[in-house]
Amino acid sequence: MIPLITTFGWVPEFARGFVRDMRPRWAFEEVGQPYRVDLITDSKNPEHRRFQPFGQVPTYRDDEVAIFESGAIVLRIAERAGKLIPREPGARMRALQWLVAALNSVEPVVMALAINDIFEADREWSKARHVKVVDALKIRLTDLEAVLGNNAWLDGSEFTVGDLMMISVLRGLRGTAELADFPRLAAYIARGESRPAHRKAMADHMATFNAPAAA
Amino acid sequence: MIPLITTFGWVPEFARGFVRDMRPRWAFEEVGQPYRVDLITDSKNPEHRRFQPFGQVPTYRDDEVAIFESGAIVLRIAERAGKLIPREPGARMRALQWLVAALNSVEPVVMALAINDIFEADREWSKARHVKVVDALKIRLTDLEAVLGNNAWLDGSEFTVGDLMMISVLRGLRGTAELADFPRLAAYIARGESRPAHRKAMADHMATFNAPAAA
Repeated sequence: MIPLITTFGWVPEFARGFVRDMRPRWAFEEVGQPYRVDLITDSKNPEHRRFQPFGQVPTYRDDEVAIFESGAIVLRIAERAGKLIPREPGARMRALQWLVAALNSVEPVVMALAINDIFEADREWSKARHVKVVDALKIRLTDLEAVLGNNAWLDGSEFTVGDLMMISVLRGLRGTAELADFPRLAAYIARGESRPAHRKAMADHMATFNAPAAA
Repeated sequence: MIPLITTFGWVPEFARGFVRDMRPRWAFEEVGQPYRVDLITDSKNPEHRRFQPFGQVPTYRDDEVAIFESGAIVLRIAERAGKLIPREPGARMRALQWLVAALNSVEPVVMALAINDIFEADREWSKARHVKVVDALKIRLTDLEAVLGNNAWLDGSEFTVGDLMMISVLRGLRGTAELADFPRLAAYIARGESRPAHRKAMADHMATFNAPAAA
C-alpha cells in the first residue's frame, strides 16, 4: 500500500504552515515516496483517538507499520527508503542524536515561547514571564548556532533526518523577533525551506486549507 | 572498548536519582553491558562543551559511535545489544514511537511543572500558573493512563526502550501530588523501578554522590 498519513483538514490561520504533518510530508518528498493523506476535522474523533491517544497529528501507516509521533514517523520514512540516515554507524547515530536533540532539547524551549506568547497571552503573568522564556531559548540557540558554525548542515555537508527535524522545530520561531540575533540559524532554516522537497511539501500542506469545504 | 558515559560527579540533593545518566545506566543493566563512567564537575568544562554543545549530560562513546542526547544513547545501547527493541518492524517502530512520545509529548509537560514549581518558585506568577501547568499535565497523563490500560508495559507484555524512556520521564513526577489521581501510571512507574536492572542502575547512580571527594 502507499503510505497513509492522517492530519487535520482545518486549523486556525496562525497554525497553517506549522502543523506537524509538514514533517512526514517533507521526508516523503526528500526520499521520493508517494503518500496519501487522510484529513480529520476533530482531534476528539473516537476512531483517531483509539490509534493516537493524545489526539495529535500526524499518524502514519504502511504495510508493516502503524505509528504516531512525528519523530518516529520521519525515522520510519527514512529507514524504509534507505535515505536521510547515513549507513556508517557513527554518522547514523549522530543523525539520530540531532533528531532527538530537536525534539527534546530545542522544541521544548521553542514551544515554551509559543505557549507563553500565544496561548497564555491573556494571563497576567505573560508579559513578565516572556523575558525569562526568551532567556532560556537564547541560551539554547546560542549553543546551537555555535555547533552549526559555518556548516551547511548539523553534521557537515550531508542533510539528514536530524536537519529535517531541527529545521522543522526552529521554523516555530518564524514570526517572532528571536531569530534576528542568530543569522546563521536563520540562514540554516532558509536553506532547509528552499529545498525542493520542502517547497513541494509546503505547497501540498497549504493546499489542504485552500480546498473548498466538502458539501 | 567498554562503552563510556559522561555525567556529573555532583548535583544538588533534589536532583539525585533524577539525572539523565540514569537512562543509559538502566539500559546498560537491562542488556547486560558493562560500562565505564567519566565524572565531570562543571557543565562549562570546555572539553565537554566541544562534544556536548548544550553542556548537558550524559554523553556516550563506544568503538564506533560518539553521541549525546539520552534518547539517542538508549537507542544505541539497545541496538548494539540487540535487546529492548523487537525485531518485527511493526513492534520495533511502536517501541521507537513510545520512546519519542516520552521525550516529545510527555517530558515537556512534566518538565513544565518542575520549571514552574522549582525553578520559578520565587516568581510572582508561579502560584497562579501552577494550576494551568497541572491542567496541561493531567490531560496528557489521563490519555497515557487510558492507553496503558491494564497492560504491564505500553505495547503489552514486552518491556522495550519505549517503557524505559517513558518511566524515566514519569519518574520526574515523584515528590509531586500529581500521580495520586493516576494509580495505573503510579503502578507502571513502580513496576519499572522494581526491575533488577533499575535497582542496580540507581544504586550505582546514587553511589556517585556518596563517594568521598577526591583529595
